[in-house]
Amino acid sequence: MCSCPSRGRARSSPGRLRVGICGSDLHALKHADAFVANARRAGNPRVMDLTRDVVMGHEFCAEIVEHGPGTTRALPVGTRVCSRPVLMRDTGPQTIGYSNDHPGGYGEYMRLTEALLLEVPRALPADQAALTEPMAVGVHAVQKARLEPTEAPLVVGCGPVGLAVIAALRLAKAEPIVAADFSARRRALATALGADVGVDPAATSIWDARPAGRPPVVFECVGVPGVLDEIMAAAPRGTRMVVVGVCMEPDTIHPLIGIVKELSLQFVLGYTPEEFAATLRHIAEGAIPTTPLVTGHVGLDGVAAAFAELGSPERHAKILVHPER
Amino acid sequence: MCSCPSRGRARSSPGRLRVGICGSDLHALKHADAFVANARRAGNPRVMDLTRDVVMGHEFCAEIVEHGPGTTRALPVGTRVCSRPVLMRDTGPQTIGYSNDHPGGYGEYMRLTEALLLEVPRALPADQAALTEPMAVGVHAVQKARLEPTEAPLVVGCGPVGLAVIAALRLAKAEPIVAADFSARRRALATALGADVGVDPAATSIWDARPAGRPPVVFECVGVPGVLDEIMAAAPRGTRMVVVGVCMEPDTIHPLIGIVKELSLQFVLGYTPEEFAATLRHIAEGAIPTTPLVTGHVGLDGVAAAFAELGSPERHAKILVHPER
Repeated sequence: MCSCPSRGRARSSPGRLRVGICGSDLHALKHADAFVANARRAGNPRVMDLTRDVVMGHEFCAEIVEHGPGTTRALPVGTRVCSRPVLMRDTGPQTIGYSNDHPGGYGEYMRLTEALLLEVPRALPADQAALTEPMAVGVHAVQKARLEPTEAPLVVGCGPVGLAVIAALRLAKAEPIVAADFSARRRALATALGADVGVDPAATSIWDARPAGRPPVVFECVGVPGVLDEIMAAAPRGTRMVVVGVCMEPDTIHPLIGIVKELSLQFVLGYTPEEFAATLRHIAEGAIPTTPLVTGHVGLDGVAAAFAELGSPERHAKILVHPER
Repeated sequence: MCSCPSRGRARSSPGRLRVGICGSDLHALKHADAFVANARRAGNPRVMDLTRDVVMGHEFCAEIVEHGPGTTRALPVGTRVCSRPVLMRDTGPQTIGYSNDHPGGYGEYMRLTEALLLEVPRALPADQAALTEPMAVGVHAVQKARLEPTEAPLVVGCGPVGLAVIAALRLAKAEPIVAADFSARRRALATALGADVGVDPAATSIWDARPAGRPPVVFECVGVPGVLDEIMAAAPRGTRMVVVGVCMEPDTIHPLIGIVKELSLQFVLGYTPEEFAATLRHIAEGAIPTTPLVTGHVGLDGVAAAFAELGSPERHAKILVHPER
């Protein structure tokens, strides 16, 4: 185990540590009770106690400040690292950032598991390394989709999740990539990340934007109640849906519509260790573009305002927190 | 095109024609408005007009009484036939049995498309031939599931749909087949159709009944609101669900639970022409057992009472209508 600072020793190295604000953090703050109730219902043995403090922040690039007992110290103090937001314990893996006991990157220090640390290549700015976690979500979603060359990917929603999926589709050489969002700003970001076509659903049918005759695979990246049902109602027969957006509220669907059209839904979450490590490599090599994603920077005292600002799709994609600011 | 009687010339051949009462008929009668609204929302261009008459009955064994214009008359009058409940028209395929224009088997005559007719082998009783359609639903669901030998099938709900899935799993040599129903009668039918284990969910967890370590593939054969959500909440991580039961009402799910466990849902409907033809063959050869399924016989004047009786799972699986009675 080692500790990684967000302030403290890193104070003199302002480029060394970043923490991304994730849409799930916004959701979890707004729907904390539903988040906890669902986690409990899904059988999660370790659910946050909302009467106690939680330090969020699970998308980070950190710096080693100290090695814990029993570590091999393979990476020296000062090394910049990324890690999956998971702490390995004898009792099993535990979440970092949605836990009362394991603070995330918005705090001063984190405890991380040595075996999970990935050294950040020297030439890679911390801004981009901090995007490993959210971009790995896209890599995993595309992997789970098992796209056939005959299928046509449609990304619905171009917030950070949709943009990660677009970058991963580009990486997987899927084409053409059709991306839909009501926001012009987000459509521009989608194009910057690799989408071939940006569709405004208010003006154009997303279904007409795909190449004729190719069965669509829809990546649902909105995560708001009603969107699944809307897509199911409008989708052509046999459409496959990959649900990447995290909807934390109950949602209503019409199973008969799914049945009549033989739709399928694959819910996805997170990434494998291999996908996470590959994502950092791809970012370092420029195969996953991340620069357009970063639309804001704040210090810890700016986090509350950033949470509010992220509510508007026209202004921001990813805001990075500089804890040492 | 040819016409097939349910009475008329068949009157003197009482063994010649049967029509099964399908759970979807019960659903469609009870939730007619939702049925029509959903069909319209799913983009079906030909939706029943509920102010006009509809003659249901899409599971049938019929007899050719007359050949229409432009037919090859390959099968002589008097031949017993099965057919998918579809009428091929220049404007596309049209449904038989849920249509104002194309009466189903509860009526006196049907129009069927010659190219779709399958001759019923001489030795096969009409009772069993009439079960081709519902049993083909199970064959298709199992086909769509693409079961791996490492996976463990769990059939939830042992009404006619669940029983068809069980017979098809047995045909596909899947094992062990675990089947769950609150009704003891239906569990006995499940065993008769090929289930290895019949589970009463009120007494035993269906998840504990499967072989340890094998990922479950759940065939949802209940089709009632709330069941999908219940299965999703209780399912182990990575569970695949095949939705065969036809739920005609809106249904609430918790997407976060699907996401956290990376569940997948494949909605299925109907069968291919090849699956339908293979099912008739398997029934004729005894590879799909159908005798235990038939729990009642009525004439046309008994259909209304049969609809009511089918509401109780303890009494019936499949009631066959003898239109000539």
